[in-house]
Amino acid sequence: MKCIILPDKFDYDGSQISSLWAYNSFGVQEDSVVVFRGTCDVKIEHMIDLEDRRANESIWSEDMVSFIIEHFDSTDLKLIYARQRLFTAIVRESLAGMGVQTTREGDDLFLKGKKLTVSIASTSAVSQKIHFGINVSHDIYGNMKEAGIGEDDQVASFMQAIGKAYVREFEDIEKDLRKSRPLGVV
Amino acid sequence: MKCIILPDKFDYDGSQISSLWAYNSFGVQEDSVVVFRGTCDVKIEHMIDLEDRRANESIWSEDMVSFIIEHFDSTDLKLIYARQRLFTAIVRESLAGMGVQTTREGDDLFLKGKKLTVSIASTSAVSQKIHFGINVSHDIYGNMKEAGIGEDDQVASFMQAIGKAYVREFEDIEKDLRKSRPLGVV
Amino acid sequence: MKCIILPDKFDYDGSQISSLWAYNSFGVQEDSVVVFRGTCDVKIEHMIDLEDRRANESIWSEDMVSFIIEHFDSTDLKLIYARQRLFTAIVRESLAGMGVQTTREGDDLFLKGKKLTVSIASTSAVSQKIHFGINVSHDIYGNMKEAGIGEDDQVASFMQAIGKAYVREFEDIEKDLRKSRPLGVV
Amino acid sequence: MKCIILPDKFDYDGSQISSLWAYNSFGVQEDSVVVFRGTCDVKIEHMIDLEDRRANESIWSEDMVSFIIEHFDSTDLKLIYARQRLFTAIVRESLAGMGVQTTREGDDLFLKGKKLTVSIASTSAVSQKIHFGINVSHDIYGNMKEAGIGEDDQVASFMQAIGKAYVREFEDIEKDLRKSRPLGVV
Amino acid sequence: MKCIILPDKFDYDGSQISSLWAYNSFGVQEDSVVVFRGTCDVKIEHMIDLEDRRANESIWSEDMVSFIIEHFDSTDLKLIYARQRLFTAIVRESLAGMGVQTTREGDDLFLKGKKLTVSIASTSAVSQKIHFGINVSHDIYGNMKEAGIGEDDQVASFMQAIGKAYVREFEDIEKDLRKSRPLGVV
Amino acid sequence: MKCIILPDKFDYDGSQISSLWAYNSFGVQEDSVVVFRGTCDVKIEHMIDLEDRRANESIWSEDMVSFIIEHFDSTDLKLIYARQRLFTAIVRESLAGMGVQTTREGDDLFLKGKKLTVSIASTSAVSQKIHFGINVSHDIYGNMKEAGIGEDDQVASFMQAIGKAYVREFEDIEKDLRKSRPLGVV
Repeated sequence: MKCIILPDKFDYDGSQISSLWAYNSFGVQEDSVVVFRGTCDVKIEHMIDLEDRRANESIWSEDMVSFIIEHFDSTDLKLIYARQRLFTAIVRESLAGMGVQTTREGDDLFLKGKKLTVSIASTSAVSQKIHFGINVSHDIYGNMKEAGIGEDDQVASFMQAIGKAYVREFEDIEKDLRKSRPLGVV
Repeated sequence: MKCIILPDKFDYDGSQISSLWAYNSFGVQEDSVVVFRGTCDVKIEHMIDLEDRRANESIWSEDMVSFIIEHFDSTDLKLIYARQRLFTAIVRESLAGMGVQTTREGDDLFLKGKKLTVSIASTSAVSQKIHFGINVSHDIYGNMKEAGIGEDDQVASFMQAIGKAYVREFEDIEKDLRKSRPLGVV
Repeated sequence: MKCIILPDKFDYDGSQISSLWAYNSFGVQEDSVVVFRGTCDVKIEHMIDLEDRRANESIWSEDMVSFIIEHFDSTDLKLIYARQRLFTAIVRESLAGMGVQTTREGDDLFLKGKKLTVSIASTSAVSQKIHFGINVSHDIYGNMKEAGIGEDDQVASFMQAIGKAYVREFEDIEKDLRKSRPLGVV
Repeated sequence: MKCIILPDKFDYDGSQISSLWAYNSFGVQEDSVVVFRGTCDVKIEHMIDLEDRRANESIWSEDMVSFIIEHFDSTDLKLIYARQRLFTAIVRESLAGMGVQTTREGDDLFLKGKKLTVSIASTSAVSQKIHFGINVSHDIYGNMKEAGIGEDDQVASFMQAIGKAYVREFEDIEKDLRKSRPLGVV
Repeated sequence: MKCIILPDKFDYDGSQISSLWAYNSFGVQEDSVVVFRGTCDVKIEHMIDLEDRRANESIWSEDMVSFIIEHFDSTDLKLIYARQRLFTAIVRESLAGMGVQTTREGDDLFLKGKKLTVSIASTSAVSQKIHFGINVSHDIYGNMKEAGIGEDDQVASFMQAIGKAYVREFEDIEKDLRKSRPLGVV
Repeated sequence: MKCIILPDKFDYDGSQISSLWAYNSFGVQEDSVVVFRGTCDVKIEHMIDLEDRRANESIWSEDMVSFIIEHFDSTDLKLIYARQRLFTAIVRESLAGMGVQTTREGDDLFLKGKKLTVSIASTSAVSQKIHFGINVSHDIYGNMKEAGIGEDDQVASFMQAIGKAYVREFEDIEKDLRKSRPLGVV
């Protein structure tokens, strides 16, 4: 699994959640997590969460760090949702490691009661994907600046730390499941 | 999904990881997490982790809280391992909520550098299971007493809090995946 | 699994077979069967059965009871087709219980040799669905009025009885598969 | 899919539920339904249903018609249970066609309130199987003799009719799922 | 599984890779391989391989033999790719049997260093498909004429031989997997 | 995926087909192909192919090269059988590349009409495996010595060439399936 950190500003408009975006953009032919920073403004046709669509929710941030994860090893909805929750927990752990305490409710992190993140997961016939975004700054919602992680180099380290942590976790799982015997039965 | 807290002392010898143990013991016909407290002494024939077997590892604790999770909705190894990692993260979050900072490496939690937990996950032809154990007291390894959670009622609350948190997480996932549109494609 | 009976007239135009229609319309985040009564006139773009499309078949009824079943636990075509056949058999059993003898051929019921029902099943990347419709009245085809179940309250009871019978069957299966040991092998 | 009717008396002791029994006994290399008539006396080690085991239930009949169904196209528990219910409904339909009214509760048929049948379904790593048995005669339980289907040639026709009906249903499903377009999405 | 050889010239424009094309065109309700000969000119909207799309590759041949394989027994990408490689190897074996030595690299065959074939595989929510094309004549690429298989009756025999060889291989696999016991475990 | 060539003589008794043998013996936590040379004498309890068991077949060779392949990415029988056929074709291609012409029938290779190889594939709840063996010398069956590949260094090169070819093929497939769009639908 590969971690790609985009060096330049890159805006999220929701089209990046499409299957094969990473291959089409960067030619990557592995499972991947692509990390970038830019504005977030999700167009209605790319909204995967019908709740947001029905509520005509705007998913908007002037400055957001985004993680785009794609796996081709399964198209099981249950698996990508378990992975999404795990990813959310990894972000929380990383933040805690930087001294920032947040609370997790499902796929959301909260900073002092304010929603800090957005996330969605789904599948197509060929892959499964997660988008996870964290506000760097935001007028209303929680954001990294308020948490004291607002300097560019801090944000850059954070992007890298989390991208790599997920790859490590994934590879660790792949190794662990190759040394476990099947269950016995009562 | 059902959470069952055993009211009395119950010892873990590894046979509880077998498929259908919860049905056989308690008649439960749902996915379940069974929580109990007692000694831990895993017999070699019930060791699922071949690494432990090869190393002739002893999995032993004089006082351990155990969580036995069983799902029948899939027999996919990748899914039960993602769930195991997520469960481990949930325990960490609960401990943090009680003021106890631990670090997670895969399916292990560490307290001040000492291993606090044991865990294994696997599948049979009919179900997938996780065992997750936390030392309440231990001469060598990390344990809850050292972390200040040693009183019986504290341990009992902890058992209940985590069992219920996992059920809530599972049900929340099941709801979320029922409102997500399939991915578009580049 | 949830059964939703729409209190008012609701027309089936084929768009209701789309994945997530139940969530989008009623906010339901469980597997579901939605039952309603109204006209049936399936637009060509919503025809799932290519045989109908190729034959330029009209799927039309002035008064039909429709069942829309959606499961998110699998996207296996074989499973949704087995469930469709089982549902058809359940309808036949309910009718027999009301004294109406029909014959079943696959997913069709016949009343005195006339086709009484229409049905289709398929999957998307996120869910599997069944539409099953029964004519309440029809000039050409078999219909419930001819069978003596034409009063509004009779039709309403029928809708409820079958919707609930399917939920019960599904939940009964889910329980049964949680108490069966894996097969031995010769 | 092949239907094999054993010409001679054959007793069911539960070992026939094992995967690959049909290949081992008859060399059949297709999905199959094997039908035979004889006594039924299930040994405890072949009891698949833990409920029976726990209750130390005896599964016994002096004269039973047994259907042993094996599919190799999937090892999904949900699918074999849906198929088991469908098979049960098919038996009910056949009986109704012979003028015998029964009621179905899950995988059980009742004749005048007395249990007429036994059934179990499960999977191994390589196949999925169903056993379905109907008492021809029984002191306590419902049986075909009471229903007026006790003559040898009647029983033989019944065995053949049902075996073939299941094969026909299976093949009909396989054809239907090869002409259905994927679902649209809201 | 059925093999259909089209008797007349038929051009490949890429739309034939769509799921259910064989049913829609020929009413076939089995897994199938359809074989035909004609020009090849794949429109951009039917290009499945994003590498070709990105490179704005033209997939063009004035005279090509095409094999369109469709399976409905699974929608697993890994399986259809293993089948595609196996099909490519079968073509190579057939050519070798006719005295034509080629080399295989993945899903490509080379004749004297020149690319002889094109191929793609993918899935939808309902089926998995392969297109495999071999140039009969071509100005730039390898082709059957150069290999000495240019006469119409030779090409016709070749089309039939390979179509049937794949069906035989598939049916042979289906039989073999119905006589293998599950693996033991260390 | 890892290729391990055992440097010393190693005898095959059938126990190596068990899941997790490679981890247990060599600590490998990847999908793997382990290649070794030694006698072959399969004990009846390790015979996976019931046809051999029923025929009381002896699977014996005084000198055989064995390939043991294990994948943990799926437990689908269809997939491991497609992979087994593909592996067989790869061996045939390698032999052809060394000037040795063989014919393939399913998972068997024949040299001048004499059976040269043995092979079996199956799954457990945690992995899927293939054994493929080629006689180096044999009194009755085809063997590499007769084919002119009898020198120790020739055999050693052959073992390595094929082990690596399979790893390359597997990795090539994994890359290809990460650049293919889902199929359209008629």
